[in-house]
Amino acid sequence: METISSGGSVSESSTMILHNAVVVTMDSDCRVFQNGAVFIDKDKIKAIGQSPDILQQFSHVAHHILDLHGQILLPGFINTHVHTSQQLGRGIADDVDLMTWLHHRIWPYESNMTEEDSYISTLLCGVELIHSGVTCFAEAGGQHVTGMARAVELLGLRACLTDSVMDSGDGLPPSWGIRTTDECLQSQKKLYEKHNNTADGRIRIWLGIRTVMNSTDRLLLETRDAARELKTGIHMHVAEIPYENQVVMETRKADHGTVTFLDKIDFLQENLLAAHTVCVNDTEIGFLSRSGVKVSHCAASAMRMLGFARIREMLNAGITVSLGTDGAPSNNRMSIVDEMYLASLINKGREVHENGTTDPTAFPAETLLKMVTINGAKSVLWDNEIGSLEIGKKADMVVINPFSWSMVPIHDCISNLVYCMRTENIVSVMCNGRWIMRDKKILNVDEEEVISLAKEASSKLLRRAGIKLPSRMNVIH
Amino acid sequence: METISSGGSVSESSTMILHNAVVVTMDSDCRVFQNGAVFIDKDKIKAIGQSPDILQQFSHVAHHILDLHGQILLPGFINTHVHTSQQLGRGIADDVDLMTWLHHRIWPYESNMTEEDSYISTLLCGVELIHSGVTCFAEAGGQHVTGMARAVELLGLRACLTDSVMDSGDGLPPSWGIRTTDECLQSQKKLYEKHNNTADGRIRIWLGIRTVMNSTDRLLLETRDAARELKTGIHMHVAEIPYENQVVMETRKADHGTVTFLDKIDFLQENLLAAHTVCVNDTEIGFLSRSGVKVSHCAASAMRMLGFARIREMLNAGITVSLGTDGAPSNNRMSIVDEMYLASLINKGREVHENGTTDPTAFPAETLLKMVTINGAKSVLWDNEIGSLEIGKKADMVVINPFSWSMVPIHDCISNLVYCMRTENIVSVMCNGRWIMRDKKILNVDEEEVISLAKEASSKLLRRAGIKLPSRMNVIH
Repeated sequence: METISSGGSVSESSTMILHNAVVVTMDSDCRVFQNGAVFIDKDKIKAIGQSPDILQQFSHVAHHILDLHGQILLPGFINTHVHTSQQLGRGIADDVDLMTWLHHRIWPYESNMTEEDSYISTLLCGVELIHSGVTCFAEAGGQHVTGMARAVELLGLRACLTDSVMDSGDGLPPSWGIRTTDECLQSQKKLYEKHNNTADGRIRIWLGIRTVMNSTDRLLLETRDAARELKTGIHMHVAEIPYENQVVMETRKADHGTVTFLDKIDFLQENLLAAHTVCVNDTEIGFLSRSGVKVSHCAASAMRMLGFARIREMLNAGITVSLGTDGAPSNNRMSIVDEMYLASLINKGREVHENGTTDPTAFPAETLLKMVTINGAKSVLWDNEIGSLEIGKKADMVVINPFSWSMVPIHDCISNLVYCMRTENIVSVMCNGRWIMRDKKILNVDEEEVISLAKEASSKLLRRAGIKLPSRMNVIH
Repeated sequence: METISSGGSVSESSTMILHNAVVVTMDSDCRVFQNGAVFIDKDKIKAIGQSPDILQQFSHVAHHILDLHGQILLPGFINTHVHTSQQLGRGIADDVDLMTWLHHRIWPYESNMTEEDSYISTLLCGVELIHSGVTCFAEAGGQHVTGMARAVELLGLRACLTDSVMDSGDGLPPSWGIRTTDECLQSQKKLYEKHNNTADGRIRIWLGIRTVMNSTDRLLLETRDAARELKTGIHMHVAEIPYENQVVMETRKADHGTVTFLDKIDFLQENLLAAHTVCVNDTEIGFLSRSGVKVSHCAASAMRMLGFARIREMLNAGITVSLGTDGAPSNNRMSIVDEMYLASLINKGREVHENGTTDPTAFPAETLLKMVTINGAKSVLWDNEIGSLEIGKKADMVVINPFSWSMVPIHDCISNLVYCMRTENIVSVMCNGRWIMRDKKILNVDEEEVISLAKEASSKLLRRAGIKLPSRMNVIH
């Protein structure tokens, strides 16, 4: 892997003005500067406002002045649930039932991964994330965090990395073995010591709980306590399917499902990021709201495998909901841009089933934009530094070209960002004050090389795991 | 508009081999040639098979031999419901209720259009369609068919063009005026005489019925008879919302909604393309199936404004269902590629509401691919010449590069086409034996010029129509 050049530590000029842009700040006043500019000093935003003002005030101290020619500048998008180590498994589990998905595809895949596979998988996933304007993501709990961290550092992204943690559960591959509760906790603490706050502060280590069905009570409670002690977050798949709730009711003596049980054992806290959270009743939405739990809504994978999440009700209850793409074998587009479009449509459509009538006014564009920016930042407990373009925050941002066939005409800029924008429109991405993509070119890795490595590693991995896919059509060789 | 150069009539070499491609034929045997080739003579496919065989047999007579380097070759996609004259209105009606949508945005927009606006709108829409791999579309019924035809001829696309036809209806703008039944029929017959089978046979003229609520019984019946006489199709919005069915029951004395009424008056025929068709019961699905009516499923716009169409039930009943994007103020992506992805997810998800449990095996990738190819061709009554790659059919095809970050790794080529492919992956498009896009460059018009014309025309149109959009955020000028 020495052939991949590291661009992450190349020193760059430390002050920069980006001007002549439509600056959509996503700050609490929802300010949009029609002819706006930002002044960046190293990794931080030092000033924001109208272009003429910023140019007048800071031109003499800026090392670089970049005219964005009326393009749109937004905070970098935040993908709050993505399995980076599953990227090499894209397409291995399409159109199959849930048990085949888990037992014959995903678990064999994950249990046969090496750290190098995870590194390559995260590189490939990261390339896709950057192309869709993501500057920060929350790993959902995957394999070989050390491999992921290496890739994130190289790509220049910001991430909350989480190990896939299970101390119980039936049906796991024999080779995998169940770790003890102590092993689960100790290994995560080691990962925290090794990687937390590395890569110029871009990497944070979170604690993971794969699902309630793969966790003892002790693991849950000690994870909660460890997170409090380490001042970090917990990423957990919550209430994904009715079966999960049923098992919890039967084995854990809870009245309703996972959320009720987690409330009972005092697990619900502000630092919990609950992914999916599809099967919840009103009382449980109340529990989540009261305790400040954040929810990652993965619209595409929910449609495919879980059902309709009650997002409107959660937002109405004041819960911070953000968006996640989930992993490549569940979606399969790791595009937060497409996820906005999809989440908007699905949640508008869901109103028909809930209320018997459509409501095109539900989930307006501005709500979706909030979900992928400031709500994303709150979900990953990082909103003091990211999620909006404001003085003092980190320079994590994305430049969007709205002047191509996919977005014109622009009568309503904000709605065009949600309903028309595609990954094609994302031209440049900055994280922590450094460009990680310029004019659609990923800067810190060679895309072609990553693709070639991924192709080779994924073929070998599938062979090792014994995963064979049936042919869908009449293929003539 | 003389500045837009016409490439449509430039003579090209008449025989060509495309080889070294994964050729997904979509023929009735679902053949996929892993190392496949096609031999094209003028506008038709003359041979298809394994690359070595085709090269050996036809190299000596081929004027051009093109190595596709393992890329995927598919039949051109067919978008069976698109309002090309609404493209300039993208973004004018997002997140508003249905009455605002119609009365304060769409009708003022449409009633203020000129033929030149329609021409420019169709050019812009066509550029987007080509970028998403579309070679043939069915216009849903729009303004100024002559303007559309001019654009379609220039772009090199294939299309069934339809006028927006109404001879009754409340709430229409006063300036628009209601045409009499005779005027509706006569003007369409004139359009048929003028444009049908023009542009080297790429343009066909269909008859239109906007909705049952905007049509007298006489218009319906005479349209049916005229279509039979002209041997053409009828494109109609059918059973879009519960209100439509209710009006039909009250005013037309039908037991259930539009479909029941249309069955009663013997309007349902094989040449009817029914768009949306969301509000139908089992009996009505039976009517549609028995009479051979085709259905265009517009997943995105249904989610936004109409509800969940009963697509599984229609497919089970043997109805030919294809996909449409609808118009830009309803979707707003005119991408049949995204529509496949979306339709798959939404119809999988719908199973939860229908059956209480998800079914990831529902709507497999191959079903979606059929919907945008051979089912599309059947829907536009053109499957004798398009919709699959077969000897004797027209050379309408699309070249897909699956080797980029958005589609790798390729473990399951067919599912990757549906679940991962984006417009980025569409590299070249051929219609009627001529390239209309090569390496992402539209050949017959200058994209930048179309965008610039569209920007100007759409601003003027909105001013003329008095359409003003409220600001969504706190915009600082």
